[in-house]
Amino acid sequence: MADSPNCDLKSLTPLQLFERVTEQGEKVRALKAGKAPKDEIDAAVRMLLSLKQSYKTATGQDYQAGLPPRDLVLINNSTTKEDDEDFVDPWTVQTSNAKGVDYDKLIVRFGSSKIDTDLINRIERAIGQKPHRFLRRGIFFSHRDMDQILDAYENKKSFYLYTGRGPSSQAMHVGHLIPFIFTKWLQEVFDVPLVIQLTDDEKYLWKDLTTEKAYEYARENAKDIIACGFDINKTFIFSDLDYLGTSTGFYRNIVRVQKHVTFNQVKGIFGFTDSDCIGKISFPAIQAAPSFSSSFPQIFNGKENIQCLIPCAIDQDPYFRMTRDVAPRIGQPKPALLHSIFFPALQGAQTKMSASDPNSSIFLTDTPKQIKTKINKHAFSGGRDTIEEHRKYGGNCDVDVSFMYLTFFLEDDDKLEQLKQAYTSGELLTGELKKVLIETLQPLIAAHQERRKQVTDEMVKQFMTPRKLAFEF
Amino acid sequence: MADSPNCDLKSLTPLQLFERVTEQGEKVRALKAGKAPKDEIDAAVRMLLSLKQSYKTATGQDYQAGLPPRDLVLINNSTTKEDDEDFVDPWTVQTSNAKGVDYDKLIVRFGSSKIDTDLINRIERAIGQKPHRFLRRGIFFSHRDMDQILDAYENKKSFYLYTGRGPSSQAMHVGHLIPFIFTKWLQEVFDVPLVIQLTDDEKYLWKDLTTEKAYEYARENAKDIIACGFDINKTFIFSDLDYLGTSTGFYRNIVRVQKHVTFNQVKGIFGFTDSDCIGKISFPAIQAAPSFSSSFPQIFNGKENIQCLIPCAIDQDPYFRMTRDVAPRIGQPKPALLHSIFFPALQGAQTKMSASDPNSSIFLTDTPKQIKTKINKHAFSGGRDTIEEHRKYGGNCDVDVSFMYLTFFLEDDDKLEQLKQAYTSGELLTGELKKVLIETLQPLIAAHQERRKQVTDEMVKQFMTPRKLAFEF
Repeated sequence: MADSPNCDLKSLTPLQLFERVTEQGEKVRALKAGKAPKDEIDAAVRMLLSLKQSYKTATGQDYQAGLPPRDLVLINNSTTKEDDEDFVDPWTVQTSNAKGVDYDKLIVRFGSSKIDTDLINRIERAIGQKPHRFLRRGIFFSHRDMDQILDAYENKKSFYLYTGRGPSSQAMHVGHLIPFIFTKWLQEVFDVPLVIQLTDDEKYLWKDLTTEKAYEYARENAKDIIACGFDINKTFIFSDLDYLGTSTGFYRNIVRVQKHVTFNQVKGIFGFTDSDCIGKISFPAIQAAPSFSSSFPQIFNGKENIQCLIPCAIDQDPYFRMTRDVAPRIGQPKPALLHSIFFPALQGAQTKMSASDPNSSIFLTDTPKQIKTKINKHAFSGGRDTIEEHRKYGGNCDVDVSFMYLTFFLEDDDKLEQLKQAYTSGELLTGELKKVLIETLQPLIAAHQERRKQVTDEMVKQFMTPRKLAFEF
Repeated sequence: MADSPNCDLKSLTPLQLFERVTEQGEKVRALKAGKAPKDEIDAAVRMLLSLKQSYKTATGQDYQAGLPPRDLVLINNSTTKEDDEDFVDPWTVQTSNAKGVDYDKLIVRFGSSKIDTDLINRIERAIGQKPHRFLRRGIFFSHRDMDQILDAYENKKSFYLYTGRGPSSQAMHVGHLIPFIFTKWLQEVFDVPLVIQLTDDEKYLWKDLTTEKAYEYARENAKDIIACGFDINKTFIFSDLDYLGTSTGFYRNIVRVQKHVTFNQVKGIFGFTDSDCIGKISFPAIQAAPSFSSSFPQIFNGKENIQCLIPCAIDQDPYFRMTRDVAPRIGQPKPALLHSIFFPALQGAQTKMSASDPNSSIFLTDTPKQIKTKINKHAFSGGRDTIEEHRKYGGNCDVDVSFMYLTFFLEDDDKLEQLKQAYTSGELLTGELKKVLIETLQPLIAAHQERRKQVTDEMVKQFMTPRKLAFEF
């Protein structure tokens, strides 16, 4: 039987199976409505039942019309799902655990790979220097196809970096710097072009903002990003609202992605509903398109197949799972990814820092005094209730936010280890640990502010002008 | 009761009511799931039932979850709906009546206004010359807000024209010329700027085409459009794939429209489903955006509030009903419209001409011989079966395709009336009527081909370059 539903159903994703069941259901209805011969209807019904069985086998759930699988990878691994599972998507990060999200579980659910010692050692050999503390300390903890990037790099094949930010307000906090600090390091050690997307259109669609305000935030945020020290000859920063109207390459890739992603898919991946505006529904394609080098003809000389590496927080992965699914169907290479953990709020690692709650974050505009007050007042402590108890039982670094922040910002591995020992043993008090953090962050932020002052409007304009970079393609 | 659902439900559209019912249903479910107090749940359920009743009163149909009203205006007038109702949307035109679609009914269903003698006389006074035969003969038969355009024009306030074409193939047929012939006339008599959108992105999304091919068709079609005789100093022709990447004004308006239209709405208006790609779902915003002058900052000097007039076939109206709904919410004037009837296929007026069936159409590339053969062989005749019967009973101009074509293309009113009399009385035979049509179309198409030969690639480039036109704003 040419039409047998069982021939290669096993190779289909849950969503593809879902769509096959839906189509077959429509076919049965059409046959019945058209009063088709009984044996034809019976055959179609048999195939429908068989498809439903395959769907159940693949997902562990009954097919429900209109309800596509919520998260493809999640469902593939639903045997491990628990009621108190962490929730992670591009807009929400929630966990009930004070240590934060269970990242090992997330790797299994998202179907990515752990950045293990072997990979870190391989990176060290490739670049000939010590890996960044974010790698050494598991802050960038997960990846997709990083080995392919290294294969190519070792064979002298170039790639490019792509990261971004949603400019929802003028105020950026230290957590926002994590991908940029790491990306700057990657750019330096690999010596590759970098594109930074500011999704002002996304913020316009999701927030109560005008396009003008969203664009203004994009330009303000660009200053903080530039202040991280990116090389102007190797970096292109762009606002979607601007660049979409400047590059035909970019829009062509957007519309290519949009042709190959259905509403069912974005519903499954991002949880969109029928009441969402069509701008939100089609936005994922706009975050996907910079993964393809032909979106930047001015940089890559029109070349289509330059591999892309995306450093980002793990909550952005759904966009790029979608991108990687589409890539081969539009003849483009899949982007590789490096995922970071979330930067915790001062109040604890149950959630990520938020720019909308001023006390949850240390802002890049905070004064030394504000930094000191916020840490002393709001940083969740893993210490004991009394000095006596603390000396006796020691503090808990796993839930102590000051210690977590130090793992992000204190470069010296030995000093960090000493602090951990001393705090865990009870030798170091909470106030003393906070003092180390304050003394680490104050100069870092002061230096950032100093560099930001040097960033002129003219420099922003230059960074944001589509142009050739210092690389030949 | 502050929350009474009945306060101003009457002012809501069926879709708004649909969304209120859906929200209220979700609220009830949430209350039940959260084990809310019984009286609170009961009150919410009462409101839900009351909303459902209002929905039924407004639409004549029971509320069905997930099934928004298919066509808002249609449902508002559903008392007149019949099973053999004509079907009209941007992709399909179907009627069972040989005379063609019932346009008077369509005006009621779409909620537009008839172009009556008063309006035609007013246009004649405003422009000081005889109205175009398309107006005199009811070929442009329906409008929205044309009186406002004339009010403004009489007060020396300018407006601009916007029309377009979906370049699905290289081959355009005579029916495709109708909006362009009329738009050219409007441009001449009102002396206003004109923008012509080529939706190559739409064709890429809907058809099995590459972006390159769709863009190539757009450029080829532009040649036929230019050959209609548009003034290069007053006309801007653009391909979406190109212009979207050239103008930040255009993309900003697209994203503004996209923010204010939900999936429910495009589902109701265009019949999209969850299996449609997100490109199709968001495309209506791209056809909407040229209705706003700020999409063309180079022409209108950045001015936001220049009124737009759109001549188009009535099947494009759903896009602009949506646009007119969004316009006030994004602070823009609603575009006005002039609607034409469909150009019938050679086989009869049940459907519009199609570029994909070569025998349904006379193409702009057809030779005099091909024109003659197609008309003689395929043009549906309203004549009688035998000469004797024809002489005795006369022919039927209402269903005769040759006569219909002559109403489109024969300029001389007196001659057209004579032909009608002679054919209806039986004096004129089908072959003779066809001969008149052949002799009318052959020189028209030959002249078009001659003008098209003069259109160079350089001219296409000029027409398609974003630039200032010969008007001050």
